[in-house]
Amino acid sequence: MTRHYDPDVDTVVRGIMNGERHMLSRAITLIESQRPEHERKAHEILDRCLAKKTEAIRIGITGSPGAGKSTFIEALGEEIINQGLRLAVLAIDPSSKQSKGSILGDKARMEKLAGRKEAFIRPTASSCYLGGTSPKTHETIILCEAAGYDVIMVETVGVGQSEVLVDSMVDFILLLMLPGSGDELQGIKRGIMEIADAVAITKTDGDQAGIAAISRAEFEAALRMLPAKHSFWQPQVFLTSALTGAGIKEVWQNISMFFAQMRERNTLEERRHQQLKNLLYTLLEERLKREFFSNSEVTGSKEKIEQQVLSGQISPFSGANVLMEAFMNYPRLPTGEQAICSGGNPS
Amino acid sequence: MTRHYDPDVDTVVRGIMNGERHMLSRAITLIESQRPEHERKAHEILDRCLAKKTEAIRIGITGSPGAGKSTFIEALGEEIINQGLRLAVLAIDPSSKQSKGSILGDKARMEKLAGRKEAFIRPTASSCYLGGTSPKTHETIILCEAAGYDVIMVETVGVGQSEVLVDSMVDFILLLMLPGSGDELQGIKRGIMEIADAVAITKTDGDQAGIAAISRAEFEAALRMLPAKHSFWQPQVFLTSALTGAGIKEVWQNISMFFAQMRERNTLEERRHQQLKNLLYTLLEERLKREFFSNSEVTGSKEKIEQQVLSGQISPFSGANVLMEAFMNYPRLPTGEQAICSGGNPS
Repeated sequence: MTRHYDPDVDTVVRGIMNGERHMLSRAITLIESQRPEHERKAHEILDRCLAKKTEAIRIGITGSPGAGKSTFIEALGEEIINQGLRLAVLAIDPSSKQSKGSILGDKARMEKLAGRKEAFIRPTASSCYLGGTSPKTHETIILCEAAGYDVIMVETVGVGQSEVLVDSMVDFILLLMLPGSGDELQGIKRGIMEIADAVAITKTDGDQAGIAAISRAEFEAALRMLPAKHSFWQPQVFLTSALTGAGIKEVWQNISMFFAQMRERNTLEERRHQQLKNLLYTLLEERLKREFFSNSEVTGSKEKIEQQVLSGQISPFSGANVLMEAFMNYPRLPTGEQAICSGGNPS
Repeated sequence: MTRHYDPDVDTVVRGIMNGERHMLSRAITLIESQRPEHERKAHEILDRCLAKKTEAIRIGITGSPGAGKSTFIEALGEEIINQGLRLAVLAIDPSSKQSKGSILGDKARMEKLAGRKEAFIRPTASSCYLGGTSPKTHETIILCEAAGYDVIMVETVGVGQSEVLVDSMVDFILLLMLPGSGDELQGIKRGIMEIADAVAITKTDGDQAGIAAISRAEFEAALRMLPAKHSFWQPQVFLTSALTGAGIKEVWQNISMFFAQMRERNTLEERRHQQLKNLLYTLLEERLKREFFSNSEVTGSKEKIEQQVLSGQISPFSGANVLMEAFMNYPRLPTGEQAICSGGNPS
């Protein structure tokens, strides 16, 4: 009778735990939804997925556009699946305010991997809310882990905020670099070099072999100069080629060794704790902005203030003060009662 | 008698307007300060600097690490200064949570430019507050404009959040790319390609000439496929070399033409309005987070909640709910009075 099949939380959670891909996809869509009734349901699902203890490992893969991330992930993914493991690949969509851009081409790019039943590939939106990044990627990781994926890969582009953010969600960061791009190892690259647990130089086949070897030496030198991210781990540089398969096995062995050492030292559990803490604060930030921008005092004067700023009557600094005061002075219910600040107009 | 010379707002503003570099530097340090008394003073200075109408143009320069941004900026800066213009270069420091990294090497990197009295070079912190980016760069732009700099350049690294953010502050985005990096013009690159108003391929001297020509054709093809950022402007691709000086003049001519057209259409003024609006919302976001994390209800239960999340007693989602409720239910002063939420404990 119902037009939309809308399974309850029990059904979704059971489906996820049973490894049903469509239930996992449905749950991810739910957590990406902005509707309050979806959010409540999503949180209930996430709470129960979080309760399931898993041994999954989380790998971040980053590198400039053109570094060949997709083909590398296909090759590494093949290796991982051949080890009898299940793999989820989450590709973070770079925020493009203009097109609300999405890497729709992504699934197509990883054709081989997408065809394997042991792999789950999904682009994950990075909602551009006032320049912020949505924490949905972290929530998607939690769902994939509950679904029994042994390895979660998060692919990001470039060198910047998104990597620092992803570093707070994953355990191991693999930096992909093209041969020759290591010739300017300046301070500006430190942010990304510092969070790398390994560097793979890609496309080292053919006539790139010579320059790749030089790049490797340069990266190794640079990595040695950086402060240690983990006391027990010295990041290594690998020469790889998705075309010939060179170096792919070695990268996976390196990653496996890292996690073996993490487990031996109980560091992985510690890291999961830190990740949960980060998630808490990311959620808070998101909720806070939502409360503010749905507050009736704020929505009531926002446009007027905006106009005054645009016409030069007041500066953005004074405008921000006025709106903050409106929000902070908004009468609340006494402590203990639920404040629904987005509803109702104060008289 | 005073240990620290602490000039008043009038003195600072007069100094800035007179083009005194040390006053400009002092004001930038003031706006980067976290202390409340500094902030009030900084806002007063900014309000007055904003009131000064200037004709300055704002250029964002972006590109992957290794693309040769610093040397390119030196060459372009030289050209700009030779036109009789004054130039301010603000380099956005990529957030490195680990080292609180700063591109201190930056000043050294632009040695030639730093030696010119017509140039002002300053790294600008992107404070990593819960993954957010501080709006101080925008405020620094305002100060530099009031100080009479004709061209403000903002240098950023990589491809991601920071570029989208910088795009909201500047008028023209120049994307620097290495020869050969255009061979994977996939969806994932759209975010940055879309905001580019021109592309300069760098280091096209020597044996890179051949591959550079191919890259140029690829970029041109890619740019044609993208939605227009401005109806009147088709981004062009330039082959440049900071070493030989090739293409540098052409890039500057292109930028000049862009601004001539912006002025002709009154689009520049419109864009300044949009930029002010963006600044308003960035400021609001920052203030909001500060109010939240200095709220006594929040600071009082934050640690307990964190512990419960870490020990698995509650999920980050439930934890965020509890803290948000604590904040939203916090009793406020009646409307009209100033709410100082960071002070005092409620009984």
